Amino acid sequence: MTYGYIGSMKTMPGRRDEVVAHLLSGADGLRAAGCELYVVGVAEDDDVTIWVSEVWKSERHHKNSLELPETKAAIGKVMPMLTAEFTRQTLSIAGGLGL
Amino acid sequence: MTYGYIGSMKTMPGRRDEVVAHLLSGADGLRAAGCELYVVGVAEDDDVTIWVSEVWKSERHHKNSLELPETKAAIGKVMPMLTAEFTRQTLSIAGGLGL
Repeated sequence: MTYGYIGSMKTMPGRRDEVVAHLLSGADGLRAAGCELYVVGVAEDDDVTIWVSEVWKSERHHKNSLELPETKAAIGKVMPMLTAEFTRQTLSIAGGLGL
Repeated sequence: MTYGYIGSMKTMPGRRDEVVAHLLSGADGLRAAGCELYVVGVAEDDDVTIWVSEVWKSERHHKNSLELPETKAAIGKVMPMLTAEFTRQTLSIAGGLGL
């Protein structure tokens, strides 16, 4: 079953653009890890919230991607710019347009 | 600026598959209205929650799509199967993979 993930994070004040740039810098490499969709958006109603919407071939592909050295390095760079306020929702993808 | 929308809804018990089918039935027609991405997923941790993640050419395209007769008809069919528990988040899309 195609696996979906929707998550949000909040950055320290003034750091959102920097975090977004980090998140986008590795996006192209995710395809080889089984990622079919990775969309980064910023909330319009504040200056610190980022939402990420992802579709993966399977939950296993997503989990394995988190163990890749480049993923761990990216998380290490980004985490100090984030607060501890996260949301996460895992999904089974039913379908849609543009997948 | 590319416009994003992430929303969730909850269905009455036993109606989720039916609502998902309705949401997917009109997906192909959304492209002509300026929709670039429309992903429907179901929560893995309950039997009633649906998440929709959308990317549109602009907020105006999204708003206009809600006025289309087919959209209004679809909303009319689906609404009686939903509870009043919605979440919504509007976004400016920064980029990603698969767009």
